[in-house]
Amino acid sequence: MSFAATILTLYPEMFPGPLGLSLAGRALEQGRWSLDAVQIRDFATDRHRTVDDTPAGGGAGMVMRADVLARAVDSAPAGLPRIAMTPRGSPLTQTRVRDLAAGPGVAILCGRFEGFDERIFEARDIEPVSIGDYVLSGGETAALVLLDACIRLLPGVMGAASSGDDESFEAGLLEYPQYTRPVEWEGRTIPEVLRSGDHARIAAWRHARAAADTRLRRPDLWERYGGDPVQSPSGARRDSKE
Amino acid sequence: MSFAATILTLYPEMFPGPLGLSLAGRALEQGRWSLDAVQIRDFATDRHRTVDDTPAGGGAGMVMRADVLARAVDSAPAGLPRIAMTPRGSPLTQTRVRDLAAGPGVAILCGRFEGFDERIFEARDIEPVSIGDYVLSGGETAALVLLDACIRLLPGVMGAASSGDDESFEAGLLEYPQYTRPVEWEGRTIPEVLRSGDHARIAAWRHARAAADTRLRRPDLWERYGGDPVQSPSGARRDSKE
Repeated sequence: MSFAATILTLYPEMFPGPLGLSLAGRALEQGRWSLDAVQIRDFATDRHRTVDDTPAGGGAGMVMRADVLARAVDSAPAGLPRIAMTPRGSPLTQTRVRDLAAGPGVAILCGRFEGFDERIFEARDIEPVSIGDYVLSGGETAALVLLDACIRLLPGVMGAASSGDDESFEAGLLEYPQYTRPVEWEGRTIPEVLRSGDHARIAAWRHARAAADTRLRRPDLWERYGGDPVQSPSGARRDSKE
Repeated sequence: MSFAATILTLYPEMFPGPLGLSLAGRALEQGRWSLDAVQIRDFATDRHRTVDDTPAGGGAGMVMRADVLARAVDSAPAGLPRIAMTPRGSPLTQTRVRDLAAGPGVAILCGRFEGFDERIFEARDIEPVSIGDYVLSGGETAALVLLDACIRLLPGVMGAASSGDDESFEAGLLEYPQYTRPVEWEGRTIPEVLRSGDHARIAAWRHARAAADTRLRRPDLWERYGGDPVQSPSGARRDSKE
């Protein structure tokens, strides 16, 4: 059974875009996933094909209309989980990606302008999802990211040469650093332990480096992992409020 | 002066992709930013144009070679900040996006396989950046996201109709929900306060909703903002380690 992606967007011509090439592109040709990019404007009812209006209560920009969005959403196949890409959403995680990839597919609503009329979320059971704490010009590049993350996990997409069981995030730590030939390059040498052939030492070193890098770069992940408190003068650590 | 984007990738044909359309596409045509997508493989030296090798110390997959990457990086214009897209990086923030958008541009290194030989980061002063806690098939869709976030902030890219000063994240809270006509839709009505014309009440309501949504959806942002502790039975709250 194929993973069905339905994208509701004002820019259907942005899809499959980068996902038409490489791993995802090959998987699309092989029918491991399917793509339907739907023009939201086709669900407007006036002759100007209007999809937005000014914000209630005032403010800059335009807001996408609930009635037009609802008709677009209703055109998507039944039974697909519905997600809207928005910086107001819950953060995307690898766990959520795995859940989606194990399911029938996903319908993704891509916003532009100042966002969606809030009523659409409850009325059509749409989950707001954010890929990160930054602002995009629209949900389309976020949708490409979400799809890319799902597609690589579909059966048969990654060859045996690639590792599908990602240690990153699921074990709660960043991945350890990687090295490859040449052994010496510009005076920098691959750490000796990695050339020792001692698998236990290598595993211990990798775990220690994963822990150290997580502690330094991601005090948030480190705390959740249960590591010792990070005392960061830069304020990167989140202080407890109690 | 134009914002110069240099992308180092095994898939230059993925660019500009979605950024060739809409806001970013218009800005590209207008010369507000420029794009140079560089094929990393062109910097390999053997006749098979090899860019990767097996991981030192063992493990699945392939690692991108430091020497090949270095030659590709050295081909980029001097003076551009250098970023590599990797889940091991520091999280991208709107503050970092603003810093980049105010500068001369960015050189972005896109990884595939199991990632980069770690020596490249220090040897070429490359900042590892992550767009979120999930795994992609490569850095290309992440690079599109980073560029999209920067480009919309370039002078003249967003019209007067759009709001460039994003309240999201910078004020430390999610944005408030938006509504637009029709006032009543499927039995759901735009909140009365937004139709009151009372600007002080509207501002207070929006702030309260932004706070409530942040507390519910993003206990991490809420704690950093200085809000009261969230008692979440779902474990969404990060417990203090002290």
